[in-house]
Amino acid sequence: MSEALRTDLYQLTMMQAYWKSGHAPEATFDYFVRKIPFGSYLMTAGLSYVLDYIENLRFEDEDIEYLGTQGFDEDFLDFLSNFKFTGDMLAMPEGSIAFPLEPIIRVTAPIIEAQLVETFILNKMNFSTLIATKASRVVHAARGRSIAEFGLRRAQGDGHLEATRATYIGGCDSTSSVLAGMKLGIPVSGTMAHSFVTSFDHEIDSFRAYADAFPKKCFLLIDTYNSIEGAKKAVIVGKELENKGERLLGVRLDSGDLSELSKHVRVILDNVGLGYVKIVASGDLNEWKIDELMKKGAKIDLFGVGTELITARPTPALDGIYKLSDVVEKGKHIPKMKLSEETVKATLPGKKLVWRIFENGKFKKDVISLEDEVVDNAEPLLEEVVKNGKIVCKRPTLEEIRQKANENFSNLPDNYKKLEGAPVYPVEFSQGLIALRETIVERIRKEEIRA
Amino acid sequence: MSEALRTDLYQLTMMQAYWKSGHAPEATFDYFVRKIPFGSYLMTAGLSYVLDYIENLRFEDEDIEYLGTQGFDEDFLDFLSNFKFTGDMLAMPEGSIAFPLEPIIRVTAPIIEAQLVETFILNKMNFSTLIATKASRVVHAARGRSIAEFGLRRAQGDGHLEATRATYIGGCDSTSSVLAGMKLGIPVSGTMAHSFVTSFDHEIDSFRAYADAFPKKCFLLIDTYNSIEGAKKAVIVGKELENKGERLLGVRLDSGDLSELSKHVRVILDNVGLGYVKIVASGDLNEWKIDELMKKGAKIDLFGVGTELITARPTPALDGIYKLSDVVEKGKHIPKMKLSEETVKATLPGKKLVWRIFENGKFKKDVISLEDEVVDNAEPLLEEVVKNGKIVCKRPTLEEIRQKANENFSNLPDNYKKLEGAPVYPVEFSQGLIALRETIVERIRKEEIRA
Repeated sequence: MSEALRTDLYQLTMMQAYWKSGHAPEATFDYFVRKIPFGSYLMTAGLSYVLDYIENLRFEDEDIEYLGTQGFDEDFLDFLSNFKFTGDMLAMPEGSIAFPLEPIIRVTAPIIEAQLVETFILNKMNFSTLIATKASRVVHAARGRSIAEFGLRRAQGDGHLEATRATYIGGCDSTSSVLAGMKLGIPVSGTMAHSFVTSFDHEIDSFRAYADAFPKKCFLLIDTYNSIEGAKKAVIVGKELENKGERLLGVRLDSGDLSELSKHVRVILDNVGLGYVKIVASGDLNEWKIDELMKKGAKIDLFGVGTELITARPTPALDGIYKLSDVVEKGKHIPKMKLSEETVKATLPGKKLVWRIFENGKFKKDVISLEDEVVDNAEPLLEEVVKNGKIVCKRPTLEEIRQKANENFSNLPDNYKKLEGAPVYPVEFSQGLIALRETIVERIRKEEIRA
Repeated sequence: MSEALRTDLYQLTMMQAYWKSGHAPEATFDYFVRKIPFGSYLMTAGLSYVLDYIENLRFEDEDIEYLGTQGFDEDFLDFLSNFKFTGDMLAMPEGSIAFPLEPIIRVTAPIIEAQLVETFILNKMNFSTLIATKASRVVHAARGRSIAEFGLRRAQGDGHLEATRATYIGGCDSTSSVLAGMKLGIPVSGTMAHSFVTSFDHEIDSFRAYADAFPKKCFLLIDTYNSIEGAKKAVIVGKELENKGERLLGVRLDSGDLSELSKHVRVILDNVGLGYVKIVASGDLNEWKIDELMKKGAKIDLFGVGTELITARPTPALDGIYKLSDVVEKGKHIPKMKLSEETVKATLPGKKLVWRIFENGKFKKDVISLEDEVVDNAEPLLEEVVKNGKIVCKRPTLEEIRQKANENFSNLPDNYKKLEGAPVYPVEFSQGLIALRETIVERIRKEEIRA
């Protein structure tokens, strides 16, 4: 199936209007985020989907046939049947740290092409970036303890696969999703469910059956009836495993006061020489609860995090947008922007670049400039990824992206990583951009508002 | 691709443990929701995906090959390569109104089969039910005004298609997603974007170009620079359309004080004989904002709702669960339940049914009973949908589901539809269920906790 119809209807109606009116300037659009839903930074993800999409963008016969039933002109549909993306794209690589207003992707193409790709870019970049960012916060809160993503059952349907990919970029170590394991090569992990325990006549029968089936990979869920009693039964099975020359890997707590229970269970295990048995905790965890548990000295080695991570609850959407910033007509650049009764909804005009200034290896501040400006002693953040419709960048593996994300995150000063009350990271506008914006606002006020 | 691996790893490890230990009772699991994230009711959706899944559930060669790299036993993998679902399933049809603790799906099958399907059922049912419920609230708040779903760009990635399907079941009238239009037959709708307006030298040029391209389907976005000035330009283009024998269909507001602006724009349009031009409003809307706008007498004919609807912000997950309630060993039923330090996490034992009692055609109360009990003058809510692994129910079309959902919703008394402060709908337990629960709690306390 083609991905071309994974778009909003209005992209196609606008395309027909551009096409019929002969309005065909080269246009530049920026994908950026106005406001971060939590914390001070974004960890970008999703570019890989965008590049695959751009490379394979075609309208199939069945697409054209469907559009024929929706009031489009025949000759416009003929045009669509030969449609390709022929433009250019700059982008921050996946796993970058970005801030509000910074172009994360910049598309330059004939406007009819640049318009179509908006919806797909927004759908993929908004979601993957949201979840990678959320994951980085959860991982940070765990202070080096491992995070396993357990979210498939509460994920927003088929979005789960890309969400799991984003959690891995953000630093999670494994997933419960077997499909993600097979498709993406992410390590898979899991223990057992309460139903496994209750299905047997007695809890200890269930522990023994599991230990028999997986003597080398045995985690026991101990909270089905009572976590402390469960821990005592786990000790029995742990000792039985020792007698067979094996080792119980861990126990899992899924309810109750995880801090107190983990300390109590740790003692129970340690007292009988099972100090090597890990304690896994799960149950509606998020970055704040993990932070709290760590502060309380909970004896937890691994956190299983589901719902809140896979949906970014309570802020399940990133309001990333894709806005026109420049058109070229008759060889002349005409910078564009949107004004709004709500100032926050205004946009930045002109073809832009983003620069990062470092201090002692750490991020100090960023600068958004116009394309013809150079910011000294700064690293440009946008890379050329598509040229004349062809992908021109290296395609890193998921492991490479994750590694790079980790490296970037470690260069972000710690105060910006605070779960609450992180300061706003400084993003400055260049002199050229400031001057251009003033000119354009003035022009719009004159020509459109008091017309 | 097979859907068999769209599951949590632990389902497969538990399956191997069941299989190796010879623990193979017939098991009954209930899918139900403990707590509703908003409001007092759920509108169920997602069953159609579950039935397709059950019917086609197989492990393909590539699945088995992957599992071979994950530490599973060879002979267990041989077993999987011939795996089929052979059990039975009862379910509430899609578009039902359900309440906490009521089994929405009841699965009875050899435990190894019933266990595998848990994750898929949870992933699909939780998400579709969440969004259908949210949609019904948004639709209800609009008091008969039409709702267009505009969420693709903010949806959680590939989850968008099933989300759009659920919004349609919940009563939305159209979607911006062309893919949903093609795949699901949902009416598609859309206007234009700010970029269309800004790409032209002047706002009015953009309006004229669009009206030329779609003289019979023309909606104009009027807030790019200033909504009132935009409305005046829409009037010019509306009059030009009249001169060609056409009619401007509508204008869209996307920012600012939508109540005040809509009233002002309504007057501007009405004063020049454009009373037939509809006003569409969008911009971070949800059920509460729409309710507020309606209370203020906003002159809005159609609401475009995106982010909050498609992700159910701020509660993007439904905590539906799938819990073991009964096993049959040597021909004898052994009812099962989970206790918990947190009472809310305990479950209901036994094979159960759900009944609804009506009063004057409206829902009065529901009763959860054991399978061998009959509740007089009540309608059973669970229907047989799968028997011996085969689908035995009628498969309604999406239109039929939507119609049925609307009918069910209209039979829910209005006080349960309140956005805030709706009372708890009465769901009673039968005498048999109450007695059984007491017996089982007693047994667990005796055998597991003071073991």
